[in-house]
Amino acid sequence: MEFKFEVIHKSKKSRARVGRIYTPHGVIDTPSFVAVGTNGTLKALDSKAVDELGLQLMFCNTYHLLLQPGPGVVKNAGGLHSFMNRTQPIITDSGGFQVFSLAYGGVYSELKSKGKKKHDGTVLKINEEGALFRSYRNGDKILLTPESSIQAQKDFGADIIVAFDELPPYHISSEKLKASLERTHRWEKRSLDAHVANKNGQALYAVVHGGLDRNLRKKSCEYLSSLPFDGYAIGGSVGKDRQEMLGLVTDVMPWLPDDKPNHLLGIGDLPSIAGAIPHGVDTFDSSHPTKCARHGLLFTKTGTVRIAQGGNANLLQPIEDDCPCPTCRHYTVSYLHHLFKAKETTWAILATIHNVAFMVQLMEGYREQILLDLV
Amino acid sequence: MEFKFEVIHKSKKSRARVGRIYTPHGVIDTPSFVAVGTNGTLKALDSKAVDELGLQLMFCNTYHLLLQPGPGVVKNAGGLHSFMNRTQPIITDSGGFQVFSLAYGGVYSELKSKGKKKHDGTVLKINEEGALFRSYRNGDKILLTPESSIQAQKDFGADIIVAFDELPPYHISSEKLKASLERTHRWEKRSLDAHVANKNGQALYAVVHGGLDRNLRKKSCEYLSSLPFDGYAIGGSVGKDRQEMLGLVTDVMPWLPDDKPNHLLGIGDLPSIAGAIPHGVDTFDSSHPTKCARHGLLFTKTGTVRIAQGGNANLLQPIEDDCPCPTCRHYTVSYLHHLFKAKETTWAILATIHNVAFMVQLMEGYREQILLDLV
Repeated sequence: MEFKFEVIHKSKKSRARVGRIYTPHGVIDTPSFVAVGTNGTLKALDSKAVDELGLQLMFCNTYHLLLQPGPGVVKNAGGLHSFMNRTQPIITDSGGFQVFSLAYGGVYSELKSKGKKKHDGTVLKINEEGALFRSYRNGDKILLTPESSIQAQKDFGADIIVAFDELPPYHISSEKLKASLERTHRWEKRSLDAHVANKNGQALYAVVHGGLDRNLRKKSCEYLSSLPFDGYAIGGSVGKDRQEMLGLVTDVMPWLPDDKPNHLLGIGDLPSIAGAIPHGVDTFDSSHPTKCARHGLLFTKTGTVRIAQGGNANLLQPIEDDCPCPTCRHYTVSYLHHLFKAKETTWAILATIHNVAFMVQLMEGYREQILLDLV
Repeated sequence: MEFKFEVIHKSKKSRARVGRIYTPHGVIDTPSFVAVGTNGTLKALDSKAVDELGLQLMFCNTYHLLLQPGPGVVKNAGGLHSFMNRTQPIITDSGGFQVFSLAYGGVYSELKSKGKKKHDGTVLKINEEGALFRSYRNGDKILLTPESSIQAQKDFGADIIVAFDELPPYHISSEKLKASLERTHRWEKRSLDAHVANKNGQALYAVVHGGLDRNLRKKSCEYLSSLPFDGYAIGGSVGKDRQEMLGLVTDVMPWLPDDKPNHLLGIGDLPSIAGAIPHGVDTFDSSHPTKCARHGLLFTKTGTVRIAQGGNANLLQPIEDDCPCPTCRHYTVSYLHHLFKAKETTWAILATIHNVAFMVQLMEGYREQILLDLV
């Protein structure tokens, strides 16, 4: 199946839409939640277990896979799908996000003055060619450029790949932000050229940048929309909190092409999804639901359950009565509470299953509501 | 189904035998490997995943379950089976082993002078009544006696339960060993009395003691065999190495009743199983195969695979071609090597599945060989 996007229904109430992304490994119904399996596995779930949950798209990180196991091993296995035995679609990022987070610190660490990683010296050089960094695994120097990122993503063979971009810091002069945007545009164009030379059945998404500067964001949308990318992701700094992020999404979404799928990078908490869907966002990736699971937080339709709470010790019912996930079908809150208190790995497995299944159902619900023009 | 044991076949070549233990939750074909799920779960596998592997008997630890979640919670859930949603048989121990390991140090730590736990003060008092210790979880004082151990095991409701005994240190004078044995016998008789007052469909195993002293071991077998226990476990110090252990098993096994199932406590490495089966041991519990899995060691018919070895990075085949386990059916050594190197929890899951499945198949193989008088 070739990559294709169709809009099934546009809400009469908002810019929300229901769509379908066709990929070589199957269909993604949008809006869709994309779980993050950084190292080629969701944490605490093997690929067959993930298959059972109906997760249509999984996000893997090029930066991590470059370092371990390396593109050669994945290519030797016939690509990520056969390496990890996943039959459903996969998206990889460019690796840029992690490298520039190491160089500049992420927005969060920057704002919290926790930017220790800035100074760890693993990023050796950033110039027009790309970014040179040192592997934290074996000390090898690795040069990440638009061309080498695309080549790695060709070796991995995900259905959707992402152009190489620069992630500028949140605190940056408007002059520097403009210079960064221009470089990012040159890098994305080089990514596109490298991709077009060997399409390999994959789709390439651009990443629109410009930080919180609306003029730059608009320019970015216009420039990148003029190029034949298959989809558009909103990246770069999207603000210090949810309000700034949603304000930006509100403004940017109308500037993106209507007939291409779009993706909101790294956002996947429940209120952000609720806030962004009415603006027409198609896909969301985030490690939030799986990370919450490991830390004892279970999502339900009536709110988040903190499994550690003492009141859960004797609760002989599933997390949610009507949840069809294997965890809810087989185990009580009482048992899950015990597994968490006993620090058993089995907790991480069962909690991850539930939260991923919850996200899948949540997005099904949003699609139904959009079809009824209720969102 | 009531508890019952039948011997199907006695080898013409050795004392090895094939048998069947009937329990309220199903049959255990012997010789059988008993995986250890200390806290009411195998580490890194939920009960449904364990069911698929054909593990007929699981071992849970009363000491740990007493502290977390406590017998009240398990009883409230209707017993361990329904608490953890296991349909197959379960055996619990008395809790004595852990308490006395805390008090005296285990044989291993004693021999290696690593007995730090001796001095951590969690065991407050040991006298004729039992052992008083402090919960490492909440500081509560807990009195473990024959009666309270049996009561906890009634609350847990395992198919097979074990009498409360004292675990004396490896280095002990013969006088003290004799005194300990006599106390253990009194405690086991009290355990039996408590059990008989409320059988609850459960079977009670005695634990024969006497350390390496053959006279004491013989006395222990004779005394405990004179009482109506349902089975006999070999416990206490069985020596500092495999040779001493197998020497002891060789001597002790003929002193145990032929028509009752027997169990070798805490032994389950492959050469020990190979050495003990010809002496007629029916069941073996050990955390060895699951611990090895987590540490990167996979069992195969041709030896142990160290998954971390570099040569595994590109190996596009299952751990064992003819292994029917889900891990071997779905994943390559190359992928497993990557998961281990990336420190992913998914490694622990997939490796545990394989090693438990290996043990199940290994014991099937032994049973076939015994039936053919080859062992």
